[in-house]
Amino acid sequence: MYDLIIIGGGPAGYNASERAAHAGMKTLVIEEKALGGVCLNEGCIPTKTLLYSAKIYDYAKHSADYGVNFQGASIDHAKVVERKEKVIKMLVGGVGAKLKKAGVDVVYGKAMIKSKSKDGFTVEADGKEYNSTKLLICTGSDPALPPIDGLKDSLANGFAMTNRETLALKEIPQTLVVVGGGVIGLEMASYFNSVGSKIYVLEMLDHIAGPTEREISDMLKKEYEKKGINFILGAKVTSIKDGKVSYELDGKALSIEADKALVSIGRRARTQGIGLENIGVITERGAIVTDDYCRTSVPGVWAAGDVNGKVMLAHTGYKEGEVAVANMLGGKDRVNYSSIPSVIYTNPEVASVGETTESAKAKGLDVEIKTVTLKLSGRYIAENEGGNGILKILIDKKHRNVVGLHMIGNYASEIIYGAAIMVETQMRVTDIQKLVFPHPTVSEVIREAMF
Amino acid sequence: MYDLIIIGGGPAGYNASERAAHAGMKTLVIEEKALGGVCLNEGCIPTKTLLYSAKIYDYAKHSADYGVNFQGASIDHAKVVERKEKVIKMLVGGVGAKLKKAGVDVVYGKAMIKSKSKDGFTVEADGKEYNSTKLLICTGSDPALPPIDGLKDSLANGFAMTNRETLALKEIPQTLVVVGGGVIGLEMASYFNSVGSKIYVLEMLDHIAGPTEREISDMLKKEYEKKGINFILGAKVTSIKDGKVSYELDGKALSIEADKALVSIGRRARTQGIGLENIGVITERGAIVTDDYCRTSVPGVWAAGDVNGKVMLAHTGYKEGEVAVANMLGGKDRVNYSSIPSVIYTNPEVASVGETTESAKAKGLDVEIKTVTLKLSGRYIAENEGGNGILKILIDKKHRNVVGLHMIGNYASEIIYGAAIMVETQMRVTDIQKLVFPHPTVSEVIREAMF
Repeated sequence: MYDLIIIGGGPAGYNASERAAHAGMKTLVIEEKALGGVCLNEGCIPTKTLLYSAKIYDYAKHSADYGVNFQGASIDHAKVVERKEKVIKMLVGGVGAKLKKAGVDVVYGKAMIKSKSKDGFTVEADGKEYNSTKLLICTGSDPALPPIDGLKDSLANGFAMTNRETLALKEIPQTLVVVGGGVIGLEMASYFNSVGSKIYVLEMLDHIAGPTEREISDMLKKEYEKKGINFILGAKVTSIKDGKVSYELDGKALSIEADKALVSIGRRARTQGIGLENIGVITERGAIVTDDYCRTSVPGVWAAGDVNGKVMLAHTGYKEGEVAVANMLGGKDRVNYSSIPSVIYTNPEVASVGETTESAKAKGLDVEIKTVTLKLSGRYIAENEGGNGILKILIDKKHRNVVGLHMIGNYASEIIYGAAIMVETQMRVTDIQKLVFPHPTVSEVIREAMF
Repeated sequence: MYDLIIIGGGPAGYNASERAAHAGMKTLVIEEKALGGVCLNEGCIPTKTLLYSAKIYDYAKHSADYGVNFQGASIDHAKVVERKEKVIKMLVGGVGAKLKKAGVDVVYGKAMIKSKSKDGFTVEADGKEYNSTKLLICTGSDPALPPIDGLKDSLANGFAMTNRETLALKEIPQTLVVVGGGVIGLEMASYFNSVGSKIYVLEMLDHIAGPTEREISDMLKKEYEKKGINFILGAKVTSIKDGKVSYELDGKALSIEADKALVSIGRRARTQGIGLENIGVITERGAIVTDDYCRTSVPGVWAAGDVNGKVMLAHTGYKEGEVAVANMLGGKDRVNYSSIPSVIYTNPEVASVGETTESAKAKGLDVEIKTVTLKLSGRYIAENEGGNGILKILIDKKHRNVVGLHMIGNYASEIIYGAAIMVETQMRVTDIQKLVFPHPTVSEVIREAMF
């Protein structure tokens, strides 16, 4: 009998298991494939490994601007992919070691929730039954694959791909069509553009990068266009087959021939075939319904990570998993979805936290919006020939606290957590003015913008 | 009649003048050489420009680890220096434009404080007299040049250099001796090592990098040694002449022949020849005595930046200048010297804020010290083949708040401001545990270390 069974060993699940075990709960993680989940095995980490190689390659191509010269720069995609595998292997091993050290049991197999009794829950995996008093569901998500004509066959024959197959590509496609200009699509477009593919990004909306602050996603699009990526906005994809992606644009039927097509139009919570119906966990539009404490509709059952369909980011999963465990133990932590940072790891990087101009307007918030150039930073100028990054800050007019912060420019990824602290702790402009930022850094532009 | 005369247009002075003008004070800045001071013209900014080129060159040399190949990488030092001049020119122009926009008057010339009356102060510059009710002294610092045998002549004939001449070098010295292993010496050693000089660092203490957390300065030393830099610790330099730096080590007289010698053994507040004695401003060991509000011994006279001899960092000067202006206007801000971050911009970077193991011990603080590897970060692993960076956190045992944080590893420079927020706002371990850090970043190791 376990105190806690966690279904799914991705970021939400493995992190929660460690916290639970440290708090003294006898904990079992059931994982179908590999610890680390999508993030570690076919998402964040492999993508960042590829993008870092592309960044180094980019640096080399522009190095003459900084007085550094090379001949014949080339990128060895096969070696990049090989290195990516090595990095994943190391990190998956690391997760396993951490769980072992924490005393968490791990079983590999597909989990099926069988039943609920007054003592708890029964879950089957790999032909065996396991029991626990509490249940945490962290089954994650799958790529959304809508019923586009030919998609199923194209996925089967390899013309169409999800992030998984794209990250495993051994050869660089000459032409790659990316269906969906969200973060995953953009990061992959960025990498394959860097290594020489001709890229077309088809996006149904009139802008890329989903809910990103519009001015910044427009700038990102321009940066990509300068690098040769083609964007087709407002495009409705009608078929993916026979080496061709067809779409409608302004009422016209068009198509692009390509070697490969990446379908990255979003992700769907993975709630089918795990027995949720056997204990009556309520789902809505395919995702488990949870509150800010990560409780489901069934007492004793929590859910964390992508499976709740809220903010599909690994670090949200970490937090939700921790909140769920804290809640199980009688604690009071909750998830504040308004201070979760997000990053696009392209070159330049984009990072955001809190309200955007659009979300503030939609909520009727009365905000002052400050926009400043990153060229206020001497370091930015020293390191970014021709760079035009910006910082946008949204300030609540009444309380004068920071409610949103958005950046485009390198180091944004590592700077944004501090902005998340500002949003989370409701720091006021006058508080931030008094902080000391190290000089010369890009981060100090945040302070500069406060005056 | 001005409300405020500021002597010195470096970081402390130019920033303070902008704040004062925005607050409605009629403000004059008297600058002897160039706006931006040492930081912008011969310190932080030029150094960072050089170091960024070196970093790109370093990337290229190790790019094969990441699947990127080049032939014949070379660095064009003359072009790097030329670019540095361009960056400085742009930034100095930017400071001038900002002051103009803020309505600050600027006069170029050497300032001399003449007298004090019941109405205020009289300062002479460039043959004219200027009057103000308040005075802010921001004259900065000069390289310390002790009476070492031969140093004066060697400076005159070009064998010995300060940071100023070193940054202007048009040719790479074959052998460079760096006298003083503090931040300036290390950053210059790092650059010239990258571009091919043979480097010897002579340091009088038994460790490099001054007050840096010892474990981290030891690691930095090892990293440098791997790159071929030679350190001689416990060395007392006895003469710098005839193309030779002589020193004593363990009672033995030794020497190194070199093309150039950089003397970087510290900096001295610039308090001579500006007329402090005419109004009775008290100095101690050559620096103006100030309190946490940046007040000097004379009512109506404040001092900010290196001239107070406290923490000689540009961002400390910014802060002190602002505190001085706030104090003039009746405000209550003060300088909290215990939450000022600092950075060494080498590869890998080092960044610190708050108490070190040594300073905590000296103050008798009861702290818990947590040391974790940066390899807890997937991004760190993805981007740092063979990297062994660490994070050290000092936690007050009683109140469980973070009192110090130290990192060695890239992005540390841009991460440290958030740690400074933690120290400044006295965040507790449990507060930090609840924050959401973006994944995958290096910054999230801070959170990881809290569990």
